[in-house]
Amino acid sequence: MKTTIIGLGLIGGSIAIDLRKMSVATRLIGVDLSPDNSKRALELKLVDEISSLEEAVQLADLVITAIPVNAMRTLLLKVLDLIGEKTIVIDTGSTKSQICKAIQQHPKRSQFVAAHPIAGTENSGPDAAFSGLFHQKTNIICERELSSVQALTVADQVFAALEMRTIFMDPVEHDKHVAYVSHLSHVSSFLLGQTVLDIEQDEKNIFNLAGSGFASTVRLAKSSPEMWAPIFEQNAEYLGQALQEYIMHLQKFQYHLMKRDVKELHRIMTDANRIRNILEGIELKQQPKQLIEK
Amino acid sequence: MKTTIIGLGLIGGSIAIDLRKMSVATRLIGVDLSPDNSKRALELKLVDEISSLEEAVQLADLVITAIPVNAMRTLLLKVLDLIGEKTIVIDTGSTKSQICKAIQQHPKRSQFVAAHPIAGTENSGPDAAFSGLFHQKTNIICERELSSVQALTVADQVFAALEMRTIFMDPVEHDKHVAYVSHLSHVSSFLLGQTVLDIEQDEKNIFNLAGSGFASTVRLAKSSPEMWAPIFEQNAEYLGQALQEYIMHLQKFQYHLMKRDVKELHRIMTDANRIRNILEGIELKQQPKQLIEK
Repeated sequence: MKTTIIGLGLIGGSIAIDLRKMSVATRLIGVDLSPDNSKRALELKLVDEISSLEEAVQLADLVITAIPVNAMRTLLLKVLDLIGEKTIVIDTGSTKSQICKAIQQHPKRSQFVAAHPIAGTENSGPDAAFSGLFHQKTNIICERELSSVQALTVADQVFAALEMRTIFMDPVEHDKHVAYVSHLSHVSSFLLGQTVLDIEQDEKNIFNLAGSGFASTVRLAKSSPEMWAPIFEQNAEYLGQALQEYIMHLQKFQYHLMKRDVKELHRIMTDANRIRNILEGIELKQQPKQLIEK
Repeated sequence: MKTTIIGLGLIGGSIAIDLRKMSVATRLIGVDLSPDNSKRALELKLVDEISSLEEAVQLADLVITAIPVNAMRTLLLKVLDLIGEKTIVIDTGSTKSQICKAIQQHPKRSQFVAAHPIAGTENSGPDAAFSGLFHQKTNIICERELSSVQALTVADQVFAALEMRTIFMDPVEHDKHVAYVSHLSHVSSFLLGQTVLDIEQDEKNIFNLAGSGFASTVRLAKSSPEMWAPIFEQNAEYLGQALQEYIMHLQKFQYHLMKRDVKELHRIMTDANRIRNILEGIELKQQPKQLIEK
């Protein structure tokens, strides 16, 4: 398939690499607002050519959009306006309610698949892209019933090539659950980074005292604000609830800490330890599977 | 040196492996309250024999204590009472003020080195021990001036064998800084784990939606409550301050999130991004060096 990737960063670039590798994309056309990113994506051979949005979209059998979620709605409406009758469009946005709502009434809605392939690193841009980013991770498709069988068949090819496991969710349910499991951990990490930077004015102390535990917990604080600020804004309601819960748990811990109530601190930590089994389950149980019955 | 390790878990076990490997320990004697841990440490050949505390301490040239910090003070006083004039004792506790204070007046204080080799994983027990745990990490020695040259020379051998970089700090300063850089990240991770577990009653959703970002941020929530509850209690004052700062930052973020103030959210995250350079510096600049001038 002639494939157009809009947004040549970590997500778009990594998809391009694996679609070419798995021969799903026969020709790759790149679109990016940044001339630097476009140039770099060509140098890295993520795409075969760079084109204008209009031309790239009209030429393509498949269009994949991988840009920050605040720009996604307008872009998708424009792309759906421009495409021919056989072109399939798949997005990759980390929030789904507002995106699904924006294009719900579009006459070409059935040519679109609302997807969220859950993968990433703290790095961004074309240079951050790599083969295997999505391997054995989960992909979520929302409002599957509004996509045509043709569109789902193409999506199936794409996510099978990325070796992802696809599940289906309602967009509101999606946003609520990712708020807790993904977005909250980014907020906790960003603010941990900021707190430590604020206090440890003397950066040498962070150097000297940071164990690998700190590095792991604060890793997501390196993530791109351009990507994450719009996600947090679009998911403000559910993320706000999650954050409220988190703050409440921290305050309860603080209360027991001030009372030197070791028994209660121990109980809280033992409770939190249950996450081990779940995380081990995640590593074990994520196997790719087919998106639609064959 | 005949070396006695008291506490045969992740820390004690990993020290044993590397001291034998680097020929610093010629014979290794293990002491552990748990018969299971003792048995397992023998099976794993972490130590050559298991002995009673009294015998193990009296036989040894070097005693290393690696037990939870709540039991450390009593143990150290007992060990110092038991040892001969030439035996050196090194502790590994993650808090230093209370430990240093407890043994400050002991007649054999100069035979003791108060250390905190900053390394660990979320796993515990003899099976978690491995060679290289301490490689290129930082070790902190407190109240160096109260240790004899002989004691510091032995400590130098030990931490050089572990390939650690040693710095010196006042015990109160130590506790204050580790509260921010190490202990706070453990609390943030434990409570993130608990919050997500509380809300996502349906564990399947955690399975499905957890990206590698969540796994990394919540990794420390798997840590041992037996080890961490006493650390938090001993460092309650400084950890409480750190936690208060962290909660305040989260609340400010929450405020801007509720106002959908994307610009301010962006600013906060850009500020937090500075952690990237610091963490890269940590990876680059940690080189082992000698503890005392040769």
